[in-house]
Amino acid sequence: MPTSWLNKPIHSLNLASAEQAAQRQEQLTKPPGSLGRLEELAITLATLQGNENPSIENPNIVVFAADHGIANEGVSAFPQVVTGEMIRNFSRGGAAISVLASALQAPLKVINLGTAHSIEDLPSVRHLNIAPGSANFAKESAMTNETLAQALQAGKEAIDNMTTVDLFIAGEMGIANTSSATALAAVLLNEDATLIAGPGTGLDTEGVQHKATVINAAIRKHGLTSTIPPLEVLKTLGGLEIAAITGAYMRCAQKGIPVLVDGFISSVAALVASRLQADSLAWMIFSHQSAEPGHSRILQAMDAKPLLNLGMRLGEGSGAAVALPLLQSACTLHNGMATFAEAEVSASN
Amino acid sequence: MPTSWLNKPIHSLNLASAEQAAQRQEQLTKPPGSLGRLEELAITLATLQGNENPSIENPNIVVFAADHGIANEGVSAFPQVVTGEMIRNFSRGGAAISVLASALQAPLKVINLGTAHSIEDLPSVRHLNIAPGSANFAKESAMTNETLAQALQAGKEAIDNMTTVDLFIAGEMGIANTSSATALAAVLLNEDATLIAGPGTGLDTEGVQHKATVINAAIRKHGLTSTIPPLEVLKTLGGLEIAAITGAYMRCAQKGIPVLVDGFISSVAALVASRLQADSLAWMIFSHQSAEPGHSRILQAMDAKPLLNLGMRLGEGSGAAVALPLLQSACTLHNGMATFAEAEVSASN
Repeated sequence: MPTSWLNKPIHSLNLASAEQAAQRQEQLTKPPGSLGRLEELAITLATLQGNENPSIENPNIVVFAADHGIANEGVSAFPQVVTGEMIRNFSRGGAAISVLASALQAPLKVINLGTAHSIEDLPSVRHLNIAPGSANFAKESAMTNETLAQALQAGKEAIDNMTTVDLFIAGEMGIANTSSATALAAVLLNEDATLIAGPGTGLDTEGVQHKATVINAAIRKHGLTSTIPPLEVLKTLGGLEIAAITGAYMRCAQKGIPVLVDGFISSVAALVASRLQADSLAWMIFSHQSAEPGHSRILQAMDAKPLLNLGMRLGEGSGAAVALPLLQSACTLHNGMATFAEAEVSASN
Repeated sequence: MPTSWLNKPIHSLNLASAEQAAQRQEQLTKPPGSLGRLEELAITLATLQGNENPSIENPNIVVFAADHGIANEGVSAFPQVVTGEMIRNFSRGGAAISVLASALQAPLKVINLGTAHSIEDLPSVRHLNIAPGSANFAKESAMTNETLAQALQAGKEAIDNMTTVDLFIAGEMGIANTSSATALAAVLLNEDATLIAGPGTGLDTEGVQHKATVINAAIRKHGLTSTIPPLEVLKTLGGLEIAAITGAYMRCAQKGIPVLVDGFISSVAALVASRLQADSLAWMIFSHQSAEPGHSRILQAMDAKPLLNLGMRLGEGSGAAVALPLLQSACTLHNGMATFAEAEVSASN
């Protein structure tokens, strides 16, 4: 399966809409700049949507799930069986992202790239069974060229299959996926894993040290450095759902769909996308600063300034879903406020 | 008019609901603590509402407006006539808070304590005409004992008049009210005004220096120190709408209604309330860190940790309205997520 589609051009930004939106912001009945980042968000969304009056009425959420062979190295606080159990929980509506998606009236789909144990058919879940999870990257490459291409393609198709979408949120689920994301970030940022590894779902200090040691050893074993092509790094360190999110983000940037990036794992997918084509970053709005300590380095590397910092570290797309109303408020204010002229309000001295 | 009602006891906190909510958070299908401050918010709201399953379905917003005699000292970037013009804008639905309240489906009322020029009757606006704005505190006391008591009472009655409310947001409008708020904070925190004064609606550096000089001179002229009773400080430095918000916050704390505090001006009203009865602070959730530079000192003095930091500095209650969905998300997650037992998800190792 080819991955050449990743090289297709990134959608252009609509600078005319940006200019119109910026001019409108100056005319609204408020001191200039007094809505702070909400003004920037409205202008950014106008730029991305090519519309002076941007709106988010059809956000789409897809949770990509997969198992990780690296879980066998004892790098997670939860057993691997939880990946499948949570896929059932997403389907039944009991997970955080299910509850948030329902409150936002946003469609939620789950794409299972591949779990260690097979799972029965479930509503709103698509099982792709690309592999029984990624392989243990402490011992071998997490993916083959073929499974990497399939995972990237799954992200692309998730976007291509959307009928109505004005903003995309990716979520993820996969026991041990902070280990995969940490390994990817360590290589791409040329940092020691000890500077990025964190507790994930709840490791203690000793557990975090063990996780970093496992990751550093794997990076050395595979001879990975920051000069290795990003797809090769992604293939070697996994995971399937991170590759799928990378593919989904790339496809959004190609098609001109704004992305609201969630937390630690999703940001690593964004980082991989930015290394494939730097222009893809313009399509990504970063929702929150995760409590996972390595997140700040990853965000800094992309010059990303997240909207929220609430100590969240759940994943699933939950931070992005919690931040979505901020974007909607930015649009509502931008479109709904009166201008000084309309309201006959005097401007500043 | 008496102010003795301010001494009535603060509503007690429901620690049983707090404990029940905290236990529920531990059972939800997520790593413990992974929703960060959203978990704390749910538990806080459970404590305040006396309900293991808190909710915000009936938020009430009241914007208190008034003019300020201190505007005559050239301390604002906007002319005084804007206070009245914005009251009309609130009524017509064109102001930021109008747009946000409509999107939140929250009732919005405007109480005009008193403007320099009289204003016609307007839908959703109550004109109290306590005084034609506060007096210029650079020359005389901003309020009399009588007008102070009336303004506090207006805040109390705004709360007492609410039929259905599970969270209260106060907004404010009044040209030059950052000068009044800065003066109040300088006295109550025993700080020089230069450490608190900021651009407000858009002063330049020279303008901010002038504002601080005017405020420091007024504080000296009136002989105000941090040992003077807070109501005396409030009377001397105004304004009418800040007194009304103080009264409203005190009444919420007495009646057991959670408050979502907006930005710089509202936080100073919260500070005054906390000096009247320290226990009132338990009823206040702080929505956002304003771009007004003095806000951080005021928040620190109350050990308040705002939810958002988006560079907003508009007032009107807009920051609180933008933050409200975070509280609603916290409740929705708390009440809607499945427990580990319900979802048959394995707990951590």
